Amino acid sequence: MKRSFIREILDSIDGDTISFAGGLPNEEFFLYKKLRECAYKALNHPKHLQYSSSAGIAKLREQIAKRYSDRGFETKANEILITSGSQQALDIISRYFQNSSIILECPSYLGAVNIFRLNGLKLKKVSLNGNELDIKSFKKFAKKNKLAYLIPEFQNPTGFRYTKEQREQVVTICKENNILLIEDAPYSEIYFESKMPCISKSLPKSSFHLGSFSKVLSPALRLGWIRADKKLLNPLIAYKEAMDLHSSTISQHIVVNFLENKELFENHLSNLREKYRQKMLYFTQMLDRHLPEFKYQKPKGGMFIYGEIEGIETQELLHISMQKGVVFVPGVQFGGKSSEMRLNYTHSCDKDIEKGIKTIATALHQIQKKR
Amino acid sequence: MKRSFIREILDSIDGDTISFAGGLPNEEFFLYKKLRECAYKALNHPKHLQYSSSAGIAKLREQIAKRYSDRGFETKANEILITSGSQQALDIISRYFQNSSIILECPSYLGAVNIFRLNGLKLKKVSLNGNELDIKSFKKFAKKNKLAYLIPEFQNPTGFRYTKEQREQVVTICKENNILLIEDAPYSEIYFESKMPCISKSLPKSSFHLGSFSKVLSPALRLGWIRADKKLLNPLIAYKEAMDLHSSTISQHIVVNFLENKELFENHLSNLREKYRQKMLYFTQMLDRHLPEFKYQKPKGGMFIYGEIEGIETQELLHISMQKGVVFVPGVQFGGKSSEMRLNYTHSCDKDIEKGIKTIATALHQIQKKR
Repeated sequence: MKRSFIREILDSIDGDTISFAGGLPNEEFFLYKKLRECAYKALNHPKHLQYSSSAGIAKLREQIAKRYSDRGFETKANEILITSGSQQALDIISRYFQNSSIILECPSYLGAVNIFRLNGLKLKKVSLNGNELDIKSFKKFAKKNKLAYLIPEFQNPTGFRYTKEQREQVVTICKENNILLIEDAPYSEIYFESKMPCISKSLPKSSFHLGSFSKVLSPALRLGWIRADKKLLNPLIAYKEAMDLHSSTISQHIVVNFLENKELFENHLSNLREKYRQKMLYFTQMLDRHLPEFKYQKPKGGMFIYGEIEGIETQELLHISMQKGVVFVPGVQFGGKSSEMRLNYTHSCDKDIEKGIKTIATALHQIQKKR
Repeated sequence: MKRSFIREILDSIDGDTISFAGGLPNEEFFLYKKLRECAYKALNHPKHLQYSSSAGIAKLREQIAKRYSDRGFETKANEILITSGSQQALDIISRYFQNSSIILECPSYLGAVNIFRLNGLKLKKVSLNGNELDIKSFKKFAKKNKLAYLIPEFQNPTGFRYTKEQREQVVTICKENNILLIEDAPYSEIYFESKMPCISKSLPKSSFHLGSFSKVLSPALRLGWIRADKKLLNPLIAYKEAMDLHSSTISQHIVVNFLENKELFENHLSNLREKYRQKMLYFTQMLDRHLPEFKYQKPKGGMFIYGEIEGIETQELLHISMQKGVVFVPGVQFGGKSSEMRLNYTHSCDKDIEKGIKTIATALHQIQKKR
């Protein structure tokens, strides 16, 4: 099996490299002192150090269910399965449906494509042409297949957010064709305008809604979840058990303690949105100043800016930029066009953002001069 | 897929049930205050909350490698892959070798059998007749297969420890037939007499040695590892990455901090051995006093006592005992004889041990009277 291009890049670079490659949150925004208190409290009792339930500890499942219900998406604790990040959620579900076919966006998240392939899924790609899902092609595939994988909120890699109309079209097509929808939503809390209801809310009995604490609390916890109707969820618990018994109980208790203070969590999320919005504004300002050849749409949330430099092979651009100490991910890695590229704007400090973009510009001019 | 019988039992019982069923460590022996300090320290820096390497954090891999080397089994950090418990280690390896055949002991660990089946492995069972591996049959299978799974130290469920002679025989057969050995060793630190070298030490290039912190520090950490030659280990890292990116970084830092104080860890292990030895002595004393019909061999380590009550179906015995509030695992669940059963002696307090064994005796007499 091939390793993920991004994690291979991340493994090979040194501390001086400026990385716009991974979907890394900004460490400065972690509430590590609060999390440390939560960890101390989590280990207050030896019972918390024992084996725990495969589906996840009861309290955490309740807290997550309540957040859904509070937003009008009625959910019970037994409709939540705790996973080791949403990466494992993708593994559990696609393993359960192994060797089926799955409809997915093109370009899409590398980690999903990888695990789908490992589980023998046949990929039915629907293009995100000009940042819009090709509904005709989605409809055509929906007639013959039963699984779909979408990232409607700040899609990876494109940053694209489904409009209300597109969401409704997807719901209708899923209902008409009995499609089971896997809705991956790791970035759904990082929005810069208003919150939109998830698609799964309109498909409560036929969807898997995937959430994660990696982007909003810390990826080190390795905690995500699947929200699904009991009938869909129950068979997955046996898989989770066979795969690793359960996720880190310590991580689970840390999150339980953190979420217990509802105000703390909601304030943290608001802060995070504002801070990432500022980062995005700064990043796009630097792009416009130093790399005007790069054409993109300003993201409304999430962690990525996706766009293209016409007539340029971004794989070649990466090669030169990397030698100068800057990395990003060429669009082809996700199944996109060879002139496209994805830039992560959340991780680097402002100084590195400007320096990194200037470096890419230098690399670009070098290519242009050669011609 | 079927759920594990044991975890189904554990899920269905209430707090008052006395459980000799699971392989649960005793919470009283967890150094939770020390672990709590380690957790606080682990979260001292926001960097520790970021994504980390799929193979595991460097420091932990070094510490584990050093423990092997210190015992004369030369190991480098890049020969260690950190996993979410040894359960996940079994998944990663058997997934890599999916649809092959595998030689294993009968009876054997349920969680291994489960995940092997999920990965399409064909099981070639070698009986542990009278607590001795049937070497003839192992040799026969070795000629036609390339994978073997053994638990040489305090086997699960039998508690059986391979003798020096048997280990040598296994090594010879593996070498002659190019067998890749998966040596599962979660209980290897819980020995009551002397430490024995693992079999993998004699097969450094053709073995996967599996270790775990679940039985010696805490299962809540969900941390185990695979020790293997780089050539065998490298392809597994791509699987680990695809499955859950990496194991909880917080758990990993907790263990790093704990192991840093070498004396603390070694003293803890000595203490643990002595405490579990005392538990085992008390448990067997109670068995001999209240349930003399149960024939078994005193374990030399590990967490289980395995034996039989001649002429009795232990599945029926469980059924009646369960109604009286005591559970254990019938041997048939592991592929053993219908008169056999496995008792965990580590988890219950002394009072419950006596009460539980008396209850099983009452259940037994009830069956005998009916006849």
